[in-house]
Amino acid sequence: MKSRTLVALAIAAAISTASCATTEAPSEAAADTTPPNIIFMIGDGMGFEYISAYRYAMSELGADKLASTPFDDLLVGAATTYPDDDTWVTDSASSATALATGIKSYNGAIGMDANKHPQQTLMELARQNGWLTGAVSTSQVTHATPASFFTHHPSRNMYHQIADSMATPIADGQWSFDVMLGGGYAHFNRDDKNWLPELEAQGMTIVTEFEELPEVQQLPAMGLFAPIGLPHAIDDEPRLASMTEHALRLLTEQQTEGQPFALMIEGSQIDWCGHANDIACAVHEMADFAAAIEVVKAYQAEHPNTLLVITADHSTGGLTLGQGGEYAWYSERVMGIQNSLAFLTERLLEMPRAQWREYLQPRLNLDFSDEDWQQLIEAELPDSERARDQQYALGAVLVPLISKHTRTGWTTTGHTAVDVPVLAVGPYAEQLRGYQDHTDIAKVLLNIVK
Amino acid sequence: MKSRTLVALAIAAAISTASCATTEAPSEAAADTTPPNIIFMIGDGMGFEYISAYRYAMSELGADKLASTPFDDLLVGAATTYPDDDTWVTDSASSATALATGIKSYNGAIGMDANKHPQQTLMELARQNGWLTGAVSTSQVTHATPASFFTHHPSRNMYHQIADSMATPIADGQWSFDVMLGGGYAHFNRDDKNWLPELEAQGMTIVTEFEELPEVQQLPAMGLFAPIGLPHAIDDEPRLASMTEHALRLLTEQQTEGQPFALMIEGSQIDWCGHANDIACAVHEMADFAAAIEVVKAYQAEHPNTLLVITADHSTGGLTLGQGGEYAWYSERVMGIQNSLAFLTERLLEMPRAQWREYLQPRLNLDFSDEDWQQLIEAELPDSERARDQQYALGAVLVPLISKHTRTGWTTTGHTAVDVPVLAVGPYAEQLRGYQDHTDIAKVLLNIVK
Repeated sequence: MKSRTLVALAIAAAISTASCATTEAPSEAAADTTPPNIIFMIGDGMGFEYISAYRYAMSELGADKLASTPFDDLLVGAATTYPDDDTWVTDSASSATALATGIKSYNGAIGMDANKHPQQTLMELARQNGWLTGAVSTSQVTHATPASFFTHHPSRNMYHQIADSMATPIADGQWSFDVMLGGGYAHFNRDDKNWLPELEAQGMTIVTEFEELPEVQQLPAMGLFAPIGLPHAIDDEPRLASMTEHALRLLTEQQTEGQPFALMIEGSQIDWCGHANDIACAVHEMADFAAAIEVVKAYQAEHPNTLLVITADHSTGGLTLGQGGEYAWYSERVMGIQNSLAFLTERLLEMPRAQWREYLQPRLNLDFSDEDWQQLIEAELPDSERARDQQYALGAVLVPLISKHTRTGWTTTGHTAVDVPVLAVGPYAEQLRGYQDHTDIAKVLLNIVK
Repeated sequence: MKSRTLVALAIAAAISTASCATTEAPSEAAADTTPPNIIFMIGDGMGFEYISAYRYAMSELGADKLASTPFDDLLVGAATTYPDDDTWVTDSASSATALATGIKSYNGAIGMDANKHPQQTLMELARQNGWLTGAVSTSQVTHATPASFFTHHPSRNMYHQIADSMATPIADGQWSFDVMLGGGYAHFNRDDKNWLPELEAQGMTIVTEFEELPEVQQLPAMGLFAPIGLPHAIDDEPRLASMTEHALRLLTEQQTEGQPFALMIEGSQIDWCGHANDIACAVHEMADFAAAIEVVKAYQAEHPNTLLVITADHSTGGLTLGQGGEYAWYSERVMGIQNSLAFLTERLLEMPRAQWREYLQPRLNLDFSDEDWQQLIEAELPDSERARDQQYALGAVLVPLISKHTRTGWTTTGHTAVDVPVLAVGPYAEQLRGYQDHTDIAKVLLNIVK
């Protein structure tokens, strides 16, 4: 597993090095009169500091220069992300709703404004005007970000209702999307309802094994490759770049003359690693997202009438690259960590504590002192029936130790209010320059689609 | 004192609101053939998160829109800041050297490369080519940032030698600068040497009282308004905007036909508040820096052949706007704090602990619980002869309490490796777009001056 991850990282870095020197933004003047394809990539939780972390993790301290990354030639601005709520700090649902509709809402809202009125989304308007639409995510496709582009619900937690909305045809043999790839099998095939045979009978191609994806030749299509979220990129083969490639292949094959597509691609689990304050996990999710950006940049270079916009819905975890007073961030130590905290804590809890040091040492590769190990092994864990509670508690002991040894800073298990990066290339990219609100990004896109 | 600070904040916000809608960047084509004046503003420690914090602190939660800030229409990119050292995290000396010379160096270096060879600075090259030069800072003018633009020393701690370098004429009645305003009186007038009478005898105008500054009519001039750094903006009248205004007045009056100037303006103490993890202090320093930006923007609007570049040398403290899992950052609570931690802890240590609560409550205006107060009042302080050690220790007890009540996150008392914002307007501003290294900013400026 590990070697695959490293190969993906190396490929992302190599493609980046090769393409960065020559990639030129097509000027607005060069755009033809057909509206451009829109590829909207959202790094969930990807504040500026995650891009910094990824770049330094890919680089070698003391080398002549930093590794190039696909972000380097795309930065155009930054965005505020505050919700229409009693806080400056947004959640993913509210921010995705803002990015999809141009309207701020309360935390938890899916495609609805603060009065719980459904708001037309970018994807709905695109579809209404004859565009193809789709989404790719490494979370369940029913999760806040993809859900907010296609459905309208008062709460992000209504996973089953969100699945029902997605599965309900809008016309004979037509759904609100042409392609939808990610996790979430369990939300479409559940005790009270199995949508999958029904969808297939109505003409949708359904795949649930990742290996079947290259064989899909027809839209509409849905690929659900995990019961809920896909595995973390650090723990398994990263999937986002490959899903992106196939979504683009299918949309391009399906396009008729003058018919653009709008595709939302989410690096969902940058946020999840951030919530867990898991720096190695976050950097590998960034590498997966970066590899997907490379796929899109290559597509955009071949199809210049394509607008690529990349942003984040918020930053997660209060990540910073410096901790405890020392002027250092040990990127090479971060890259020595082999698995996510979720993966490691699950396994630790299945073995006697006496084995923890022997199991963890070659997977963390950090120079823990005897006292560090003692602190871990004597960790008090809650007497809970939910294994996840014990995992969280064990993670909460590991995080400060890993932070101390890598000098990674975290301030919260939630989100922060700091502004997020805006990156873009292609027609209309100039309209996204400088500081803006995240609703302004949506307004630029809605204006193209209208 | 407080009311003055708030007035300054209100003025900055008001000017910003008035100017933002109409400010247009002069196009490169409009620049005449004379090289533009260069105004290089450095917010020491001002990562993106400080701009976010300032904007939300100026805004009202629930209002129709955010307060405008002078940053809003200026953002063009971001920069990496790593030094030529065994770490990704720079200090102010190394980063100022990179920003002044275009060459990376080790942490601590003043205008020297990693081999301790002096490197020509922007100000030296400008002077060599007949420009006027100057600097304004709220730290001592001998501090790392101004020092790196005018002098060459192996260590930032050589304050007396830096003062000696600045005071030594480069020709009869000429120094390496035309105007130098800030703190640092004690470095020029010390037991072993008092430079001031000598400088005056050689033709330099010297002022040491802030009230004298408007009366200065002639360059070269030096204003040293505090023994070391100026007081924090939150504790006294903010000075940066006013010093900036007078530096611009004097340089403009002194300019001959076709003679541009290069002026470095540092918001020095954003960094100092960051090191202290003092959020209220940091926001007020940001307000002072923002007020100085407004002065420069107004100047640039009247003198369009002026390039304004704003960046940071690094981010300090690992500031984030979210802490402890709650989705909130309480900007109005931050704005309720009346003084810096440095100010408050100094006074607390002069009174019996029994009086701390009564003294602090109306100055913090936070809803501390009885347990919070108890924790503070029972704080164990080091048995040190240096009052500053006790202040730091008391600050270290106050910071987590203030963080908990305002949901402000900090991860270090040092710096971090995260990328910093780049803002610009005027001729050549286009060359600073997107991601770059901080040395690239210097190269753009050196290329204008050459």
